Amino acid sequence: MTNRINQLYTLMQASGMSTLLITEPKHVYYFTGFACNPHERFLGLIISTEQEPVLIVPALDAEAASQESSVKRIATHTDTDNPYAILKQHLPASIHALGIEKEHLSVIRFEALSAVVQANAYIDAGDQLRSMRMRKSADEIARMKEAARLVEAALHTVVSQVKVGVTEIELVAELEYQMKKLGADGPSFDTMVLAGEKSALPHGNPGTRKVQANELLLFDLGVYANGYASDITRTFAVGDIDDQLKEIYNTTLQANLAAIAAVRPGVTYASIDRAARQVIEDQGYGQYFMHRLGHGLGMDVHEYPGVHANNEDLLQEGVVFTIEPGIYLPNRGGVRIEDDVVVTADGIEILTTYPKELTIIGG
Amino acid sequence: MTNRINQLYTLMQASGMSTLLITEPKHVYYFTGFACNPHERFLGLIISTEQEPVLIVPALDAEAASQESSVKRIATHTDTDNPYAILKQHLPASIHALGIEKEHLSVIRFEALSAVVQANAYIDAGDQLRSMRMRKSADEIARMKEAARLVEAALHTVVSQVKVGVTEIELVAELEYQMKKLGADGPSFDTMVLAGEKSALPHGNPGTRKVQANELLLFDLGVYANGYASDITRTFAVGDIDDQLKEIYNTTLQANLAAIAAVRPGVTYASIDRAARQVIEDQGYGQYFMHRLGHGLGMDVHEYPGVHANNEDLLQEGVVFTIEPGIYLPNRGGVRIEDDVVVTADGIEILTTYPKELTIIGG
Repeated sequence: MTNRINQLYTLMQASGMSTLLITEPKHVYYFTGFACNPHERFLGLIISTEQEPVLIVPALDAEAASQESSVKRIATHTDTDNPYAILKQHLPASIHALGIEKEHLSVIRFEALSAVVQANAYIDAGDQLRSMRMRKSADEIARMKEAARLVEAALHTVVSQVKVGVTEIELVAELEYQMKKLGADGPSFDTMVLAGEKSALPHGNPGTRKVQANELLLFDLGVYANGYASDITRTFAVGDIDDQLKEIYNTTLQANLAAIAAVRPGVTYASIDRAARQVIEDQGYGQYFMHRLGHGLGMDVHEYPGVHANNEDLLQEGVVFTIEPGIYLPNRGGVRIEDDVVVTADGIEILTTYPKELTIIGG
Repeated sequence: MTNRINQLYTLMQASGMSTLLITEPKHVYYFTGFACNPHERFLGLIISTEQEPVLIVPALDAEAASQESSVKRIATHTDTDNPYAILKQHLPASIHALGIEKEHLSVIRFEALSAVVQANAYIDAGDQLRSMRMRKSADEIARMKEAARLVEAALHTVVSQVKVGVTEIELVAELEYQMKKLGADGPSFDTMVLAGEKSALPHGNPGTRKVQANELLLFDLGVYANGYASDITRTFAVGDIDDQLKEIYNTTLQANLAAIAAVRPGVTYASIDRAARQVIEDQGYGQYFMHRLGHGLGMDVHEYPGVHANNEDLLQEGVVFTIEPGIYLPNRGGVRIEDDVVVTADGIEILTTYPKELTIIGG
């Protein structure tokens, strides 16, 4: 935690930001270890190159904060206080420009804050925070491995139970039950189970469609564990499937493997997208892969970087993202195969380990 | 939907607001019937006394919007457009003050919007929207009854399965499984199951604590169904419990009933809180009921009004809120009994129907 604050000081100095107010609860957790849902109440962390960090919490969270937070200077406010007046007391005396999280702070809170704080300017600290969160530490990667392990355990259990006639939403309920039982904090997004022609909808909603023989069955799911997300997609054959569905399966798998083979520090995200897309285009299915290859993963299930044709940023060690090519044949069926990967000094580590060869289930 | 927009026109005229931009997806749904999660993309509904309403949606949601939205003038933007430029094209030519949702709009979005729109002023439409949402229509109350029915069905099933030795989180997993299986959209908040001394923590977290004989077991849970939330708490005795626990149970129940008996249009929320609190104070447990009596319920699980000693607003027909007195004896156990109620023309209707007499389970 201290290390993270020191890293932030460096980024702040490089951008001429002397004082920063962090209000997003996930970021308070990231820098202090104190996990708090303040609901409608104010939660703030002052990071300044001019003084020690100060954490400001609702009075009813003071006890938990003093136990969990690595920032030990803690101020509290009750429901009858103006929390911004208390914030003001703990800020450096004169602030030229205050860094804030413009992506998270609402206008109503900003107006209440600025009316009291009266800094000359307010600048967005989004870039600094994104660049820090993008590169995961060993501890964060360990948490993400655990999140991957938990979701895969849930998937293994439920896949072994699939029978013709079960509905998509029954499988969703089973999966989320297993996640909870295994100790995950919960799903990291709405669990998706899509059968048959519905698997061709990249954003389909599970419903009462029953699993039938000789069709595809797609699972896209993830969990939060210790504050970090996993996100995996696997597609199965329920009984035997026809040759075209086998072909799109194997093409998607080759695309997934081609992208994995291309990952190393210093190449562009666009080149990873290209590596997968080329395989699919070469088989004549290019028009049926109409989304980006993947997205960053961490404390949010979708975060920086986007892995697509227009991202010319370079891969860096420690970045975690998804690789999830797909081929979707309208009214027939779709295949997506998604892994979570981390960029290492010499290439890649794959956090998801669930087998990827075409597997027949439901027998 | 048209009716709601007309109601909004009346409120806008009363406050001198000629044009309003709605950006919160729940409010877009409320006024158009179009349910959309735009993720990071722009979604907006222009309501103006000077022109027909216009809905602005991401291009990939255009098809769904044209099917579901009662507002039929729909504009779209793609990922390469500046959505605020498209917004500007559909706003009235000159805007003195634009109404916005300051509670929901982030600073970064507001800056992007105001750079293009350049209204003279931006005023918060929070009051108008709150006052509309507060009073539920017959359709909304029907949805909330369904949400109550679903959560009670899940609770009935799981309560009948409770055995000594099961853990809190296993019961949470079972409950959320049942919710999904019954067709709820999902839990409306983190399902809470607290056993024994943990039931004395109003904000406790379910864990691996096992249910034991001769103690209390508290369930606090809700679901979303058709966009509306339920929220119920029931507390049970696992086998026989001692006289003091029975006493706090029955006192809490009397407090719940006293509050229910006090509900009718025209009295203050403070008086409802008082009716329940008086019962608990009279039995000498006042210091162990340290939270407000309840909160508004609707599209959010916590919304206006708060039911507490400082809310001198008057109850109005159609308002839905919770009544949830509790007594929490540290290191011993706690009881909370929570119902969802709607204020009717001549008193109250109770949406939750689960029995409230002290019930022994786990046998």
